Amino acid sequence: MPDESIATLPQPPYYAVIFSSRRRDHDGDDGYDAAGERMFELVQGQPGFLGAESTRDGAGFGITVAYFDSEDAIRAWRDHEEHARTRAQGRAAWYDRFAVRVAKVERAYGWERNDA
Amino acid sequence: MPDESIATLPQPPYYAVIFSSRRRDHDGDDGYDAAGERMFELVQGQPGFLGAESTRDGAGFGITVAYFDSEDAIRAWRDHEEHARTRAQGRAAWYDRFAVRVAKVERAYGWERNDA
Repeated sequence: MPDESIATLPQPPYYAVIFSSRRRDHDGDDGYDAAGERMFELVQGQPGFLGAESTRDGAGFGITVAYFDSEDAIRAWRDHEEHARTRAQGRAAWYDRFAVRVAKVERAYGWERNDA
Repeated sequence: MPDESIATLPQPPYYAVIFSSRRRDHDGDDGYDAAGERMFELVQGQPGFLGAESTRDGAGFGITVAYFDSEDAIRAWRDHEEHARTRAQGRAAWYDRFAVRVAKVERAYGWERNDA
């Protein structure tokens, strides 16, 4: 069974959007999980989207990395209307703090246990 | 109180090493946490190290991003003897799979709630 949490990507170069965030304290369902699933569904339909990885610890600190084939693809996703609305909701309700770094991936390699 | 989990970095350009990993199933203490703390202590003494962020979910999928001021600084850390030994231990004992992407950060921005 493939490990779905690590994205399968083409050879570099390509681009990475690294999104690090601290969730706000919250009680119960604040719509965050559903919005995250909807954003992942949407981004998969974006031209130039290559894959994404996301994780968050029990203390609410998370890192999501989304990979695109070009800066144009990153801009188109940023300008997607529903994505922009959801980002505004993130600032209003879900996050205490976040950082975004946009980077050009120059080389990549992987490793997998082969006695599994 | 500053949020220690999001790294404070200089203006781009700088470099990011994105390490995504799936932990192997394990029972009890396999030395992983202590090794992680030791690596973080060591890397802070490396010339050109700028900061790092790390998180892992309950299912064992983690992302660590370490930031350096140059490719030379990344190579020096890769070649650090104790770091190389610890990476070998990671392949032998701690991980089922990992991916490394090395990227040049071209732009960055952040946001922080100001009604906290």
